[in-house]
Amino acid sequence: MLRKLSEAIRKKPVIGWGLFLAVMVGVFLLGLLAASITERRAEIATLFNNKKVDIQGIEARNEIWGENYPREYETWKKTQNMDFKSKHLGNMPEDVLESRPEMVVLWAGYAFSQDYSAPRGHMHAIEDITNTLRTGCPENPGDGPQPATCWTCKSPDVPRMMNEMGIENFYKAKWGDLGAEIVNPIGCADCHDPVTMNLTITRPSLIQAFERQGKDVKNATMQEMRSLVCAQCHVEYYFKGDGKELTFPWDEGMTVEKMEEYYDKAEFSDWTHALSRAPMLKAQHPDYETFLMGPHAQRGLSCADCHMPYKAEGGIKYSDHQIMSPLKNVAGTCQTCHKDSEEQLRNYVYEYQDKALEIRDRIETELAKTHIMAKAAWDKGASESQMKKSLDLIRQAQWRWDFSVASHGASFHAPVETQRILAHSLDRTMQAQLELQKVLFAQGVVDVQMPDISSKDKAQAYIGLDMKTLKDNKKKWIETVVPKWIEKAKANKRLIAKS
Amino acid sequence: MLRKLSEAIRKKPVIGWGLFLAVMVGVFLLGLLAASITERRAEIATLFNNKKVDIQGIEARNEIWGENYPREYETWKKTQNMDFKSKHLGNMPEDVLESRPEMVVLWAGYAFSQDYSAPRGHMHAIEDITNTLRTGCPENPGDGPQPATCWTCKSPDVPRMMNEMGIENFYKAKWGDLGAEIVNPIGCADCHDPVTMNLTITRPSLIQAFERQGKDVKNATMQEMRSLVCAQCHVEYYFKGDGKELTFPWDEGMTVEKMEEYYDKAEFSDWTHALSRAPMLKAQHPDYETFLMGPHAQRGLSCADCHMPYKAEGGIKYSDHQIMSPLKNVAGTCQTCHKDSEEQLRNYVYEYQDKALEIRDRIETELAKTHIMAKAAWDKGASESQMKKSLDLIRQAQWRWDFSVASHGASFHAPVETQRILAHSLDRTMQAQLELQKVLFAQGVVDVQMPDISSKDKAQAYIGLDMKTLKDNKKKWIETVVPKWIEKAKANKRLIAKS
Repeated sequence: MLRKLSEAIRKKPVIGWGLFLAVMVGVFLLGLLAASITERRAEIATLFNNKKVDIQGIEARNEIWGENYPREYETWKKTQNMDFKSKHLGNMPEDVLESRPEMVVLWAGYAFSQDYSAPRGHMHAIEDITNTLRTGCPENPGDGPQPATCWTCKSPDVPRMMNEMGIENFYKAKWGDLGAEIVNPIGCADCHDPVTMNLTITRPSLIQAFERQGKDVKNATMQEMRSLVCAQCHVEYYFKGDGKELTFPWDEGMTVEKMEEYYDKAEFSDWTHALSRAPMLKAQHPDYETFLMGPHAQRGLSCADCHMPYKAEGGIKYSDHQIMSPLKNVAGTCQTCHKDSEEQLRNYVYEYQDKALEIRDRIETELAKTHIMAKAAWDKGASESQMKKSLDLIRQAQWRWDFSVASHGASFHAPVETQRILAHSLDRTMQAQLELQKVLFAQGVVDVQMPDISSKDKAQAYIGLDMKTLKDNKKKWIETVVPKWIEKAKANKRLIAKS
Repeated sequence: MLRKLSEAIRKKPVIGWGLFLAVMVGVFLLGLLAASITERRAEIATLFNNKKVDIQGIEARNEIWGENYPREYETWKKTQNMDFKSKHLGNMPEDVLESRPEMVVLWAGYAFSQDYSAPRGHMHAIEDITNTLRTGCPENPGDGPQPATCWTCKSPDVPRMMNEMGIENFYKAKWGDLGAEIVNPIGCADCHDPVTMNLTITRPSLIQAFERQGKDVKNATMQEMRSLVCAQCHVEYYFKGDGKELTFPWDEGMTVEKMEEYYDKAEFSDWTHALSRAPMLKAQHPDYETFLMGPHAQRGLSCADCHMPYKAEGGIKYSDHQIMSPLKNVAGTCQTCHKDSEEQLRNYVYEYQDKALEIRDRIETELAKTHIMAKAAWDKGASESQMKKSLDLIRQAQWRWDFSVASHGASFHAPVETQRILAHSLDRTMQAQLELQKVLFAQGVVDVQMPDISSKDKAQAYIGLDMKTLKDNKKKWIETVVPKWIEKAKANKRLIAKS
């Protein structure tokens, strides 16, 4: 039978030669593919072996790294663009206190009541922290109000200075001491080893937090590191003791309750509230902790999977360093795994956000009222012991509110956990009001007259802030002191002088 | 060149015959596959064309259907087993009032305060509704307390009787009228057309609710029907007007707020609370509405996808009719789509449940307290106008609590929506307390003494229930009246007499 087939082929050479041609075309295409693979490998090798500059030690100037890694650098530079508008983010930078003036009352007595804007991209880190009213007008060495600790997450100049002057001395310094040193915004050296380009932890607080939990961050896997480099900063932390040592309150655990337990045991408070006199906690941005409690972390994802999706250019695959909301690039992020349309995926996220914001708004309204009620009780002569229970509840309520609100994207990262925390915040807010109402009744007060806090200006006037002076001083400082810092930094080659 | 190849084959017959053999084996296997497919089709055709009994009209006796569809029937029969223990379900039937005695207070003045057990499988439907104290002891025609409407979701005898006596007359009848007619538990005729076996809507309330929304349920797709047959019963509904017409409050929308708007517009309340005198709403089990707001419905799943997974037996693929928690069969349900381990999947669900239960427990504690505070205010002579605001808040708070708690699996079906609703419930509960506290202060009451409601017995004694009499009467009724109903049903061939 097979003999018959081969004979048939011999008898019909057209079919035979056709088949032969098809095989040849296939082999040719395979060859092209092999060449392409080889070429790509060569391109990567060339890139890595022919660096334009040799970087050693802690190089804080991102532009220098950009010489060797132009793709990563160019995408990193895009973090200056705030062109993504989501449903809940309008024009950037958004003046959050203007949108939600109750927050002025919530932070009375604390610098956040002066100025609080929605966060912008990494490239704005130094610019924004310099310009905010919260950092005041430090002029001379030793001037505050902020310790150098407050810069810890803002610049690759921080590990450089820590290396130079010692970690403890860095934390103990003031803004007035280091204004001409901390000048480059969050960038390459914050996460990368300059020689191997491996991800690396440059901030001592994460290493120390791991150590206190009996873990070594050096044992982290590559995928864990793709979150941990972010967790150097995107976490809850506080300035511990007089040394202002940046510390993560993870020793009891990483939930909102466990961190509260840590702070309670340490009898720590960030400030005493100017109206209610409650011993307050200010949540930073517990993004990593919240993320860990959500469905994406539970399924093994890292921060970089969604915030730094891979891109391809020629033979090179690289991570997009324009770190921002994955909603800007749904096709490159969510749709890697999810088969829903871009619109659907965006709407799922917006729905989670809407549901959280609904409860958040209720808390802000009621919690502001609670501080004002407490002030009224003090004004009427309430005693410490009468006030104790309410003040504890206020501290607990606001900590929970801040934890879920201050964290970037909490309502998406851990939607159910965030709703749980918000419910507890509202619960404690209302419990505090019940307690305060009793104290007020005992003093003959039936209803507390609520002030008009319907705008940022009105709320700031109510809590007694002299905003004109604060703004005038800051403006003058930005015009006079900051240029000197920049000039000095350029002269000392801390900062690349731009043409 | 090709000629050389064919000559080589001729020269090496071993390779040639080997190739020939491989082709033959392949063809043989293909033949086997084709035969198997044909056989399966034949098996299905045989099954459908050779029914043992011919079912026409509304056949309420599930055993008769079982003759033709033994696989579906046998799995349906397994709904009598309550052998699945999840983290939050212990021994079944669980006496919920014993576990959470605050609920006795929440339902004071309403039959649920007497008796409330966790739901059991479909096959228990008639047994459980007969035995609960809530349905009282109807003996003679015209006896209540319950209208026949209360049976609507419990038996395929209901569409039979509706067909026989008219829908309106069915709703107007009492339990005393139809005890010997409504005897078969939820089964085949509730969802299937007996001739085509297609899914079909047998309950008028769903058809009417669709009509009022300008939709025709007949236009539903097969996949939609796989949820809509369940939505005949697993929804929020109420008994409308004196005609006790079963009605879905969907005219304004299907969210907790929109259904409340419907009830408010209709000035409807299920009962007046015995302690607070608030005009209360009792949520039924808005499972379908809640499901629609969650991630699985948003991605096109139906109830049956997870609660009735496909099984295979020989050439037959059929739906498992042992409708229950998909957690009993994670491999056949969740793992159809999700790549996590069974343990992980179960834990994700338990985590959602835990977080909802945490807020639920807070609500139950505080809401019970709120009713008691309202009673104290009334007792001290508070006026209607003084109480109005608190009572409205109590109605709203309890509606939201009940909506998320009464719905089977709400915290899984729509985890974020459920947390949102629970937060609002707790919010309004606390607002009501704040209002009541003011009313009480105005009457000179500083603290309301809370009664001991730490067990079901204590709570029932507190709200004034004579449980001994209720239980004794019920016991006697079960021993004397029910057997007569069953006997009559058997004599009239409404019920299959078991040997």
